[in-house]
Amino acid sequence: MLGLGDKKISTESYKGVRDFYPQDQVVQDYIFGVMSSVARAWGYDEYGASVLEPLQLYQSKTSEEIIRDQIYHFKDRGDRDVALRPEMTPTVARMIAGKIQDLPAPIRWYSIPNLFRYEKPQRGRLREHWQLNVDMFGVPSLLAEIEVISIAYDIMKKFGADQKDFMIKINSRPLLDDIFKKIEIDQDKRQFVYRLIDKKEKMPTDEFRHALIALIGQKKAETLLEDLYFGEGLLTMMHESETAKALNKTIDTLRSRGVSNLVFDPTLTRGFDYYTGIVFEVFDINKENPRSLFGGGRYDDLVGAFTSQKVPAFGFGMGDVTTRDFLMTHNLLPKIDSTTDIYICVAPETDMEEVYKLAQNLRDKRVNVAIDISGKKLADQLKSLDKRHIPFVVTIGTEEIKNQKFTIRNTETRDEKSGNIDELVSYFKNI
Amino acid sequence: MLGLGDKKISTESYKGVRDFYPQDQVVQDYIFGVMSSVARAWGYDEYGASVLEPLQLYQSKTSEEIIRDQIYHFKDRGDRDVALRPEMTPTVARMIAGKIQDLPAPIRWYSIPNLFRYEKPQRGRLREHWQLNVDMFGVPSLLAEIEVISIAYDIMKKFGADQKDFMIKINSRPLLDDIFKKIEIDQDKRQFVYRLIDKKEKMPTDEFRHALIALIGQKKAETLLEDLYFGEGLLTMMHESETAKALNKTIDTLRSRGVSNLVFDPTLTRGFDYYTGIVFEVFDINKENPRSLFGGGRYDDLVGAFTSQKVPAFGFGMGDVTTRDFLMTHNLLPKIDSTTDIYICVAPETDMEEVYKLAQNLRDKRVNVAIDISGKKLADQLKSLDKRHIPFVVTIGTEEIKNQKFTIRNTETRDEKSGNIDELVSYFKNI
Repeated sequence: MLGLGDKKISTESYKGVRDFYPQDQVVQDYIFGVMSSVARAWGYDEYGASVLEPLQLYQSKTSEEIIRDQIYHFKDRGDRDVALRPEMTPTVARMIAGKIQDLPAPIRWYSIPNLFRYEKPQRGRLREHWQLNVDMFGVPSLLAEIEVISIAYDIMKKFGADQKDFMIKINSRPLLDDIFKKIEIDQDKRQFVYRLIDKKEKMPTDEFRHALIALIGQKKAETLLEDLYFGEGLLTMMHESETAKALNKTIDTLRSRGVSNLVFDPTLTRGFDYYTGIVFEVFDINKENPRSLFGGGRYDDLVGAFTSQKVPAFGFGMGDVTTRDFLMTHNLLPKIDSTTDIYICVAPETDMEEVYKLAQNLRDKRVNVAIDISGKKLADQLKSLDKRHIPFVVTIGTEEIKNQKFTIRNTETRDEKSGNIDELVSYFKNI
Repeated sequence: MLGLGDKKISTESYKGVRDFYPQDQVVQDYIFGVMSSVARAWGYDEYGASVLEPLQLYQSKTSEEIIRDQIYHFKDRGDRDVALRPEMTPTVARMIAGKIQDLPAPIRWYSIPNLFRYEKPQRGRLREHWQLNVDMFGVPSLLAEIEVISIAYDIMKKFGADQKDFMIKINSRPLLDDIFKKIEIDQDKRQFVYRLIDKKEKMPTDEFRHALIALIGQKKAETLLEDLYFGEGLLTMMHESETAKALNKTIDTLRSRGVSNLVFDPTLTRGFDYYTGIVFEVFDINKENPRSLFGGGRYDDLVGAFTSQKVPAFGFGMGDVTTRDFLMTHNLLPKIDSTTDIYICVAPETDMEEVYKLAQNLRDKRVNVAIDISGKKLADQLKSLDKRHIPFVVTIGTEEIKNQKFTIRNTETRDEKSGNIDELVSYFKNI
């Protein structure tokens, strides 16, 4: 047995994952609370599943890069291939397919699962992260796109973000196909052009231009570049296409709802192979660090991997790490203290059972109360408050018990108020 | 790529774990909500950690059976030995040790992690389960035992359990040592006697008796049996021992706090090797199915596996599966509906943006609202309500929008109320 001698076990967590000490957990709970409250406000039901899934689940539509390089998988003691889920969408598609007969459309579901990817830990990329997943199933119409993107926007607003802090880029995957057709780019070259466009933001403009010319020739490249940078004009130009009409309708409706930071970006593609229609992505507009925060899109064929019934779907995933980074960058994290409201310091000789009764009395009134039972000197108990981040303190000795009169002190402002228990509670509740 | 042809992927989850469809998740959230609220009421801070831990963490004090037969572990792509945590106590001990300098005693922490064990799935035993962990660190005195057992009791009461529905068994591990000394059982035989006692409930009385006689002889066996069945008399008899005094004090204090279903059981041992003092276990008192629900104890040496500082600890773990079974057996699960309050059915021709505005108006007043955007006939929308379990429905057409007068119907009682939005909200809020 280790640990019994002098050799100590490391206190480090597994590489690339996080320990949530209370001051971190309380922030995490705040973030999840905002996400949940908005999803519930829109009528979404929470679901959950195990982090363990059959590996086979990911061998259909998850991007090949993830399967090959990043997925955690192993054989269990029964020789089954098991994976730690790298994303939630295959799981929710599996669950929806499993009970599709009992689930009338529209099906509105959300979850905040943890996900695993084996990758080099860096800012915004860890081996384990949590992700809000919001999905609507069974609605093929644009009302799904409009609602789900509205929810993404509402969550950003609920976090206190201003429209100028972020922007929402939107595109339709089939739109590029329409453009390719119009410009008469050969079928066998489209895939390469598509991939090149996906990398556009990561290379110098000139390099992108030259690569494009090399692929499809000077004339077609010029036309395509004009289209890609033409932005919204492209949509007008493409007005005869159903794809362009749908995208225009979505943009117009969302803008009329006040989502004025929505912009069309014909180069937006998103990584997953299963997207079939409109895709969107939310970007941080911090001058020093413009980056993608989260996004989603339509995936009408994924549930079809499990059932012969056709189940259209639109949804997004919003990670906790990028969300927390965004909130910190824009100074939007509220100062969050402990969930404990009152800390009771106890003078020596005080009858602990009397202190306990007082605390239970407060707890019955929905006040969260911790009692110092360390047996330390009162001065040391009070000094420990610096590290506890609890908003109120009450010091109790024999006199206070006898007179049933207590003094509550705000640990930050040092304001004090004396009274019986009911007076303490009402003082505390009215802060 | 699978799933593109006719061959469909299975909708089954991995063996031995659970999918939480919304009707299951809402029960889970209720159970976790009660657990959290009681832990917070007593001033416990929530913490969290990854389900992945270095395998080494479990090679010290977790029971050997778990390590050998039940732990999930594998090598990651960097050749590290990784485990899916089978219990939370080693993790919390690791975290406490990692920041012990910044954490003044008493340290009160709780968490509701998921845990994994590879075992044959059966009633009450799954491969993944969740478990409330409540732990107090840094307090060597009995005040820790008394507080933490009070919390376990409070949680049962908060779930609506009556004292006659469950009982709390308590013992002190060193007490058996004291008895062994008194009866003069040889040092080398104590371990075997200890294990035999642990199995006592699972074997016929006669068999236990004969095994005991074979081990330590007729006379000592008779004395020991008398002690073990003597119950509380044993404590009086042992009054000179510090162990017996501490146990008596704990029992007396808890009883004076109203925990009248607390009983001393000298045969209670608990499975984990790291317990050092008082242990307790909560039992269901259902005549047809008396079984252990959860328990805990003192483990003063575990944090010492990570740091040279001595950190006494007392805590318990309470699993979701046995808790849910208990609540169902005793009919204590409240009828829990969806988290959505109002479902809006929309007649054809209605302007969806007007419906959206109405819904946002309700959401602003903290009502959770889903809109039917299926495009189906109104009759089909209304029929779908049978499967939705949403308490209220509002049907909206062009007339309702024009007059801003709506009818809200309770989907269960069929009671109706008409009025403008404010009247709807106040009707709904006063139910």
